Amino acid sequence: MEKIAVWGFSWIPPFAQGLVRDLRVRWALEEAGLAYDSRWIGTGELKSAAYRSKHPFGLVPVLESDDQTLIESGAIVHAIAERCETLMPVDRRNETLSWMFTALNTIEPPIWNLFAMDVLHRDEAWVPLRRPGAVDDVKTRLAALSGCLDGRDYLLGCFTAADILMTSVLRFIRHTNLVGEYPLLDAYVKRCEARPAFQAALRNQMEGYALNEPATA
Amino acid sequence: MEKIAVWGFSWIPPFAQGLVRDLRVRWALEEAGLAYDSRWIGTGELKSAAYRSKHPFGLVPVLESDDQTLIESGAIVHAIAERCETLMPVDRRNETLSWMFTALNTIEPPIWNLFAMDVLHRDEAWVPLRRPGAVDDVKTRLAALSGCLDGRDYLLGCFTAADILMTSVLRFIRHTNLVGEYPLLDAYVKRCEARPAFQAALRNQMEGYALNEPATA
Ligand SMILES: N[C@@H](CCC(=O)N[C@@H](CS)C(=O)NCC(=O)O)C(=O)O
Ligand SMILES: N[C@@H](CCC(=O)N[C@@H](CS)C(=O)NCC(=O)O)C(=O)O
Repeated sequence: MEKIAVWGFSWIPPFAQGLVRDLRVRWALEEAGLAYDSRWIGTGELKSAAYRSKHPFGLVPVLESDDQTLIESGAIVHAIAERCETLMPVDRRNETLSWMFTALNTIEPPIWNLFAMDVLHRDEAWVPLRRPGAVDDVKTRLAALSGCLDGRDYLLGCFTAADILMTSVLRFIRHTNLVGEYPLLDAYVKRCEARPAFQAALRNQMEGYALNEPATA
Repeated sequence: MEKIAVWGFSWIPPFAQGLVRDLRVRWALEEAGLAYDSRWIGTGELKSAAYRSKHPFGLVPVLESDDQTLIESGAIVHAIAERCETLMPVDRRNETLSWMFTALNTIEPPIWNLFAMDVLHRDEAWVPLRRPGAVDDVKTRLAALSGCLDGRDYLLGCFTAADILMTSVLRFIRHTNLVGEYPLLDAYVKRCEARPAFQAALRNQMEGYALNEPATA
């Protein structure tokens, strides 16, 4: 994997800055010490035929390299982790992937629904009716996850690719205090976000937005 | 991976039979020609400390083997696929995993939300207000997915683990005609479901329910 380029949005409003899924790919690359370039796509161009030839669903992120073009943040982070013993200890590959799927397929769904409700569908009439149940769904998952972190700093004990995905998912509800209700989880997210690789990735994404900020924004 | 056992629900009502996520694990095992036993857990026992020692979130499936205990259907199917060249061609591992994540993290979320609305939350006041938008979200994904199947029988051309997950996800909206609106998708699901390994897995799951059917059901 050489000549790596990561596709992200050229600009999005502040409420979504730091949440777009190219951030986790940048983070993994920073942890792995792999150099990469940034490519920016306007949200208006996402569904163009040109961009869909890279990503059939018209989403970010996409990772391009001399090897191949890869979609899905989970698969991209996994491909990076395969080049980096820290991100995925070679004798604990199944366990790492199991926690990666937990992040994206057990924790993300209720969290994403709450984010969508509060941010994307904010003014719709169904939201106040559904929200209490959606919060309960999130809490059920956070409580169990918090239990898993009792006595360990990271999901597998040591920091891995799974923590990149889990932290990224938990950030979707940064507009609430839900994570804060679980001290172990709260400390976990802060511990992960304090990593220099996360900070570099975030800076990197933010620099793109600053560069591409529309004059009218 | 030997002495494999798969955990699924001992019984659930007919509307969910054939949808529970141990089915995809059975399917992968049948495709790979790996022998396995079934273990049944009552839905009332899911959140018990005993079962949570296997699955911290109290869900099915769990795969137990002499190697390890593994959760998350995506990770379990991947672990099985690693023992079976057909399910994951060795030179196309990233691509297979990319489609696996597409199934569980791009296609499943809107599909699951529609299933939950129509089946689990049926009588709640927010559902009629939200449903049209939720259907649009599903159609956006199905249309793009259908485009990917133009000119090929399976996601990677040949049948892989990704098709097991994708078909399993699309089955969650079998109560609607949405898949039927996309002839390529409809034919794809039927093609996958016609596989002897799928049929064996389904028979296997159904036999469990027949065995464990409560007298009062
Ligand atoms: N499962 C995909 C999801 C990608 C995704 O939803 N990306 C968002 C940005 S974080 C996007 O491109 N949204 C634009 C849209 O939905 O049209 C992944 O993890 O890569
Ligand atoms: N992401 C998990 C999801 C597992 C899951 O939600 N399983 C359902 C059955 S298909 C379950 O156990 N539901 C019980 C509950 O939610 O309490 C996986 O793919 O294994």
